[in-house]
Amino acid sequence: MQTSWIESANDGVTDFPLQNLPFGVFSTNRLDPRVGVAIGNQVLDLRACAEQGILRSLSPAIQQACTAPVLNRLMLLGRTASSALRGLLLEILGSDPVEARSKVTRILSSASDVTMHLPAVIGDYTDFYASIYHATNVGKLFRPDNPLLPNYKYIPIGYHGRASSIVISGAGVKRPNGQTKAADADHPAFGPSRSLDYELEVGFFIGAGNTRGEAIPIHEAENHIFGLCLLNDWSARDIQAWEYQPLGPFLAKNFATALSPWVVTMEALEPFRAASFKRGQEDPEPLPYLNSEADRRQGAIDLTLEVWLSSQRMRESKQAPIRISKGSARDLYWTLAQMVTHHASNGCNLQSGDLLGTGTVSGPAKDSAGCLLEMTQRGAEPIQLPGGEIRKFLEDGDEVIFRGFCEREGYPRIGFGECRGIILPAS
Amino acid sequence: MQTSWIESANDGVTDFPLQNLPFGVFSTNRLDPRVGVAIGNQVLDLRACAEQGILRSLSPAIQQACTAPVLNRLMLLGRTASSALRGLLLEILGSDPVEARSKVTRILSSASDVTMHLPAVIGDYTDFYASIYHATNVGKLFRPDNPLLPNYKYIPIGYHGRASSIVISGAGVKRPNGQTKAADADHPAFGPSRSLDYELEVGFFIGAGNTRGEAIPIHEAENHIFGLCLLNDWSARDIQAWEYQPLGPFLAKNFATALSPWVVTMEALEPFRAASFKRGQEDPEPLPYLNSEADRRQGAIDLTLEVWLSSQRMRESKQAPIRISKGSARDLYWTLAQMVTHHASNGCNLQSGDLLGTGTVSGPAKDSAGCLLEMTQRGAEPIQLPGGEIRKFLEDGDEVIFRGFCEREGYPRIGFGECRGIILPAS
Repeated sequence: MQTSWIESANDGVTDFPLQNLPFGVFSTNRLDPRVGVAIGNQVLDLRACAEQGILRSLSPAIQQACTAPVLNRLMLLGRTASSALRGLLLEILGSDPVEARSKVTRILSSASDVTMHLPAVIGDYTDFYASIYHATNVGKLFRPDNPLLPNYKYIPIGYHGRASSIVISGAGVKRPNGQTKAADADHPAFGPSRSLDYELEVGFFIGAGNTRGEAIPIHEAENHIFGLCLLNDWSARDIQAWEYQPLGPFLAKNFATALSPWVVTMEALEPFRAASFKRGQEDPEPLPYLNSEADRRQGAIDLTLEVWLSSQRMRESKQAPIRISKGSARDLYWTLAQMVTHHASNGCNLQSGDLLGTGTVSGPAKDSAGCLLEMTQRGAEPIQLPGGEIRKFLEDGDEVIFRGFCEREGYPRIGFGECRGIILPAS
Repeated sequence: MQTSWIESANDGVTDFPLQNLPFGVFSTNRLDPRVGVAIGNQVLDLRACAEQGILRSLSPAIQQACTAPVLNRLMLLGRTASSALRGLLLEILGSDPVEARSKVTRILSSASDVTMHLPAVIGDYTDFYASIYHATNVGKLFRPDNPLLPNYKYIPIGYHGRASSIVISGAGVKRPNGQTKAADADHPAFGPSRSLDYELEVGFFIGAGNTRGEAIPIHEAENHIFGLCLLNDWSARDIQAWEYQPLGPFLAKNFATALSPWVVTMEALEPFRAASFKRGQEDPEPLPYLNSEADRRQGAIDLTLEVWLSSQRMRESKQAPIRISKGSARDLYWTLAQMVTHHASNGCNLQSGDLLGTGTVSGPAKDSAGCLLEMTQRGAEPIQLPGGEIRKFLEDGDEVIFRGFCEREGYPRIGFGECRGIILPAS
């Protein structure tokens, strides 16, 4: 495989080899927020690249987009533009070292010196429910007789989330207050949530959008996806249980949603595409508007997803975080393309920078459950932490760390970096 | 009552007397979109006011905010700022005619010559469900035994809507396609909705926001409201029925939401405040965080809301629209302040320009139902139009017109203008 003249990109363990080149927004002490690309343990300043003429073989629109403080303008230009930029970056970072170095060494920052920001201004955030394992596991807890609702295998179920409270990895998450009602109580009470949870998801950003009133055919859907990141849809289960009928989750979810900072492109994930979910004999075919041969053949992504946890006590006693689950986005019932096409099928206009989430990614195995609600069976089967602690749900001081990566024999690891967050006490 | 030197503001029938002064965003052939204020049949250009020094007695921040192409910057400055601006406009438009005329006559446009735009960049849109009559009527149709869910009287139920598809009054609304499933069908089918509906709502914009993690106490909630407008939450009932479990409405609602263009301030509505909904003997008191003496005493607004309809055939035969319902925002179970406080009670950050909707406003009488679903009992009792047409739900070519106004003996009518939309055929 091609290597980079930036040595840390070739060490075999980095999330960001030459084949990845995810986009993000960073700043340093000296530099305002700007678009960059991760390579090994370095971040290349794309604004500086544009200003110094390094991107002059690309269209003026792409060069201009690279000078913006967020990725929206690049997203707006669509898949062809981001592919062209990626192609040039592959050349610059993988080419003859002497010439390349002289060009860009001065506009590289060490990843440890940069502050990451939200990659885009997010107009709308939509969260799906694409894991049939998650839907079934959660359904069993609330409706033992009827875990999976009749619409599930026909509709990529989704709902609108809150855009204002989307935060970047590392932001603290204050335990929310809210109304909860104990099963044996006559009335609800207001106070701190006692069943705070994470939800392990994949987020994906819209590149070029669609006009209001016009659908996106399934075979064009992936052209509207700019790239992917990790997403933690923080959830308060006790608030959710009391509020969610009949209009869905609201305050149980909208206090914070966290994103990993680097957006991995569909091109980088190309070698890890896989056949979409294998439906059972009795399962219906997707309706025609959601059905395409190409999507069936390689609509999924074999992206490994891990959840790590460290408690405050663990950190105080220098214990490393432990991994509490491991799953794969390959297990999703619905593909990203199906979610995009369904979303726009009524003419809803998706816009550049909009964020879609897959919903909690759970697999068939118990240790592949993407949230504590499932893993502990709503607290009935707590998990063990080193040092004798147990967890039904999250405690103040707990840090949750998501990791995501694609691995395949003979190909560099394509990583997503991390999505982290620490629980702060309620106010 | 004080009158304006602009005669059309004093005619007793205008929606926009001197006492109203709603804010909006307009353009003309010659002028870019900019902030304006409606007065009689005229629109005053606030950007020009700021640029010509007419607002110089106000803070530089307010003058700057008036030069923006949307209201967000004025909203951000909070209630004190918009009140100060309103106070000065009352003086300018109500004062000694000769002096005032010489100042502002040249920067007035005739309302018939302007194009209106969305008043703000709307970051997030949240829709509530604050009418207990609506919740009960709809609940009866879907759950005859159990119309009102147990949480209703404790929680101002709400959910996140779609910001990208919010449109200004006058925009066409294409009939959405979607999955629907007939009661006797084995499988769902994809095609145009056959039960398209309007929902009569009041929208309200957030002025100053709150920081993520910090609540808004009930006694401060109204200070975060910039003003009100009419809102049509277009809904496809057949799509909704099949998709809404378990995460709430999604594609049934997000194809379009329409707003009336003029934002009426809380100050203008002050004379029409009323006691909040009179709860019954067995109804619970609101939990303390949603309970305040002032809100009980005058948390409601006696705002009359009307729905008018004209079919294509009616317009072709020169028939005027007919009024099909009339209700009042006074009948809402939850107040605007309670909705704001509940929304932020978990630390969710509301931002300037965010839009909240009350949900369908229905009253106790049948002709005060705020949507066709209720009025026709899901099509079982169609309404009659002139010329022999009937309506269960909306047909292509139907135009829906919302009007809203406050009236009181001895006080000028405070009107909201109109929110209009015509149904276009599905594609």
